[in-house]
Amino acid sequence: MNDNRPIGVFDSGVGGLTVAKEIKRLLPNENIIYFGDTKHLPYGDKSKETITKFCKKITKFLVKEDCKAIVIACNTATANSLEEIKEAAGDVLVIDVISPVAKKVAYELNQNIGVIATKATVNSHAYKNCIRKHNRHLKVIEMATPLLVPIIEEGFRNTSISKSTIETYLAHKKFENIDTIILGCTHYPLIEKEVQAAFQGRVKVIDSPLIVVNELIHQMQKNNLMGFTEEPNYHFYFSDYTENFAKLAKQFFGKSITLELKRL
Amino acid sequence: MNDNRPIGVFDSGVGGLTVAKEIKRLLPNENIIYFGDTKHLPYGDKSKETITKFCKKITKFLVKEDCKAIVIACNTATANSLEEIKEAAGDVLVIDVISPVAKKVAYELNQNIGVIATKATVNSHAYKNCIRKHNRHLKVIEMATPLLVPIIEEGFRNTSISKSTIETYLAHKKFENIDTIILGCTHYPLIEKEVQAAFQGRVKVIDSPLIVVNELIHQMQKNNLMGFTEEPNYHFYFSDYTENFAKLAKQFFGKSITLELKRL
Repeated sequence: MNDNRPIGVFDSGVGGLTVAKEIKRLLPNENIIYFGDTKHLPYGDKSKETITKFCKKITKFLVKEDCKAIVIACNTATANSLEEIKEAAGDVLVIDVISPVAKKVAYELNQNIGVIATKATVNSHAYKNCIRKHNRHLKVIEMATPLLVPIIEEGFRNTSISKSTIETYLAHKKFENIDTIILGCTHYPLIEKEVQAAFQGRVKVIDSPLIVVNELIHQMQKNNLMGFTEEPNYHFYFSDYTENFAKLAKQFFGKSITLELKRL
Repeated sequence: MNDNRPIGVFDSGVGGLTVAKEIKRLLPNENIIYFGDTKHLPYGDKSKETITKFCKKITKFLVKEDCKAIVIACNTATANSLEEIKEAAGDVLVIDVISPVAKKVAYELNQNIGVIATKATVNSHAYKNCIRKHNRHLKVIEMATPLLVPIIEEGFRNTSISKSTIETYLAHKKFENIDTIILGCTHYPLIEKEVQAAFQGRVKVIDSPLIVVNELIHQMQKNNLMGFTEEPNYHFYFSDYTENFAKLAKQFFGKSITLELKRL
């Protein structure tokens, strides 16, 4: 029997759209509810306590909306508030963006793994801890790259601004010997090509959204949660009106989406 | 008689420190309370309704702390919520960062005035409206430059990143003929020299904090609010702990300040 309840996805803003888009591509017959907490973005500079408060409210809202699974499409939220989100979700399946990636990377032929992410994600050492749990011989080097989110949000991809910023960050001495890089923020897949160019093909860039959605499918199958809706609904909630959110949601999902302001 | 009640200053984060520092320099015997709303920063992308809600709470807090004057050291807050802040302040003197600057610029020998600011400030047209109220013959060209705040917050002043970003923004065709530029965000005085360099001395850069504090002094004298405290207190409240805030507050005010987390 099909379970046609929606999949809930949330992020502080538009970054999670890279994950939501991958869900739509690999699960084209599932309904999706997306919550963008634009009133409080960005999460990356805020404290654990504050981030957790926001995440719990959103999770409870998605549970109330009858979601069958919740994808935390935000590294900062995962790194700081995963346990609290799972608790707020009760019996609902929760998929995060860090553990599936950490697990996959830990069992591949890598030696030195670089991670770029927000300050709050780096400070939590979520990637390092999670990768080392699977394989304690790996070297994991985390670096905060907080300018990349606003550059992406403001539409400055593929400009001299993004180029000089990416090059400045990645040229840091501590990334000298990495062979793999994890884009530890759901915004960063949007600059994947520029990161690849900065390393001149020398470093393997991990495709996080694909890994995360494969894990979601695996868990949905295991828990008998797969649905089939001929013409699925894509409902986007946002907590404060911002120009960018509406524009990017449409850019990623096409025009046939519902956009709704929702103050929690 | 001296009025030794504190002057209240607020901003979404550290930007207002440029104004607070100028108050300390020109009024070295006044007590200052600073409120940085780091839990909700940045204001520049948020809606008028949301910004106003935050500002009213902060204003009421500063009134309760017995401030004799409140300086809105944030252009976005001024542009979106000035009337509501004045209402919340009751009888307390309110000084904003836009009207004194607009008035001064309107009566100088300028023809074409450029303004760089956050999106929310530009969308409000507060500078254009305020300048044209004094002199309707002036041409006022406003441009949103939202990347500059995170670049400053992240400590990338005087780097290839700030250089390419400032040059990209200021090279815009609509700034071709300006003779004056207003730095319409309290963060921007920190990159004043870089802006000057980008224009190669061709354009006059307005020193907003100086103009704002001169207006504050003028109004305090007029209203008999001047104080004299031999060793004044500088009390900094912030609504969420961020590394940057504590660091910059100390950098601007020296180490003898009080820092206190305050959730409103």
